[in-house]
Amino acid sequence: MKTKSVPPSGARGLKLNIVKVGGNIIEKEEDLQNFLDAFAALPEPKILVHGGGKLASQLAERLNIPVNMVNGRRITDAETVEVITMVYGGKVNKSIVAGLQARDCNAIGFSGADGNAILSVKRPVKDIDFGFVGDVVAVDAAMIHNLLSIGITPAFCAITHDGKGQLLNTNADTIACELAIGLSEKYEVTLNYCFEKAGVLLDINNDNSVVKDINSDKYAELLNEKIIADGMLPKMENCFYALKGGVHKVHLGKPEMLHHTNANFTTLRL
Amino acid sequence: MKTKSVPPSGARGLKLNIVKVGGNIIEKEEDLQNFLDAFAALPEPKILVHGGGKLASQLAERLNIPVNMVNGRRITDAETVEVITMVYGGKVNKSIVAGLQARDCNAIGFSGADGNAILSVKRPVKDIDFGFVGDVVAVDAAMIHNLLSIGITPAFCAITHDGKGQLLNTNADTIACELAIGLSEKYEVTLNYCFEKAGVLLDINNDNSVVKDINSDKYAELLNEKIIADGMLPKMENCFYALKGGVHKVHLGKPEMLHHTNANFTTLRL
Repeated sequence: MKTKSVPPSGARGLKLNIVKVGGNIIEKEEDLQNFLDAFAALPEPKILVHGGGKLASQLAERLNIPVNMVNGRRITDAETVEVITMVYGGKVNKSIVAGLQARDCNAIGFSGADGNAILSVKRPVKDIDFGFVGDVVAVDAAMIHNLLSIGITPAFCAITHDGKGQLLNTNADTIACELAIGLSEKYEVTLNYCFEKAGVLLDINNDNSVVKDINSDKYAELLNEKIIADGMLPKMENCFYALKGGVHKVHLGKPEMLHHTNANFTTLRL
Repeated sequence: MKTKSVPPSGARGLKLNIVKVGGNIIEKEEDLQNFLDAFAALPEPKILVHGGGKLASQLAERLNIPVNMVNGRRITDAETVEVITMVYGGKVNKSIVAGLQARDCNAIGFSGADGNAILSVKRPVKDIDFGFVGDVVAVDAAMIHNLLSIGITPAFCAITHDGKGQLLNTNADTIACELAIGLSEKYEVTLNYCFEKAGVLLDINNDNSVVKDINSDKYAELLNEKIIADGMLPKMENCFYALKGGVHKVHLGKPEMLHHTNANFTTLRL
């Protein structure tokens, strides 16, 4: 019904947008609706990726399940992986899918288990036992490409599986990054990280201090000057890991950047 | 990776199994695992449909959200549709999908919003306001057929959408029935209702009292004798509605019937 046709599979130079939407956006209904407007208006093919950490913590608290975070990462016991599956895979994912359908964007919600899209392995215990947390080992780019080719827009939540029946909690930035690398063989991929800031900022409190272009040299410089630190550090590491894996470019900034209506965002290239 | 090929689309006489698994099976871990063994072993193409009512009620109770049932149907307010989305679309659906993947069955979890597979309309208020409950108006058989054709096994939870962003609670028996009718144009569909009983029973406490074959005449007779009553009545109405809609046959019984290892189940034909 709403399936649209895209150029034949494997076409060189076929562009794909992968958009990861940050937790601070999906937690505010108005911001989420604005984001979905911007995302749905992108030309196809496209993929959405989301987490929902704070919403999961809220449900865990209501259910008296302790929330344990170490270095910003969630310790995921059996009860917690169930909470995450309900919030990321149920509540957030299905409401995003319904919201996209209302905008004539033919989305299908995915965890990594669906279509065996993202296979991971339970993180080995070293200093910290993260519990049911998965490190990605394989992305089924051919299956995802098949769906994109018939006009489907996959919407991924931050859950993978081990192929043996166990669901695993996996960071949404990482999922976006691994999908982008996996699909770079068939597509010229732009990986977009949408969040509440305008990009990489020289002054974290000033959205006009965006560093517009960052390459490997500039990145080394910013690291040296300690402009990139804290939460931005793993995000930037993900970005350069993606670029080294064949991703065309990475954008960081507010959802408006998806349509370049505002030049105030960061572009990363090798 | 695990995608398998099936005969070309639209082939006449191509068989499709649609299997609805009852709540009493999915609520017991061992029974669910046995059911998934039986389902995964079916030849493709196939579709699974599930609800999860009691599990939703359990979560609602933990969250102090009142559970209101009228004639066995749930009154679905805004909080309840969220609970249902978390339980049916998240917890139950994703664990079924992961369980099928572990059995080399390439499942993708669906609500009616995903792929715009099942469009419904919020039930008009007459005597009772059921709230966010959806009556099915359209099934996108072409999209589902596309997925079946590339070896995907859709696993549907009992949620639909109104196309305007609202998720709606819809009876799982009804979803199985509407999918079966929708796909009967392209497939010879067997609709299987798996539950804890061996089929339609002359004596509800005796699994050996199964009525093996029921056609329209026999159905009228059983109704007359009040052998079909209570919960079986809407189920049987669904079955004959499906048969009149072009479904080849309907089976009712325990999961073992899927492989005919036991002849103790009910077959319905017009």
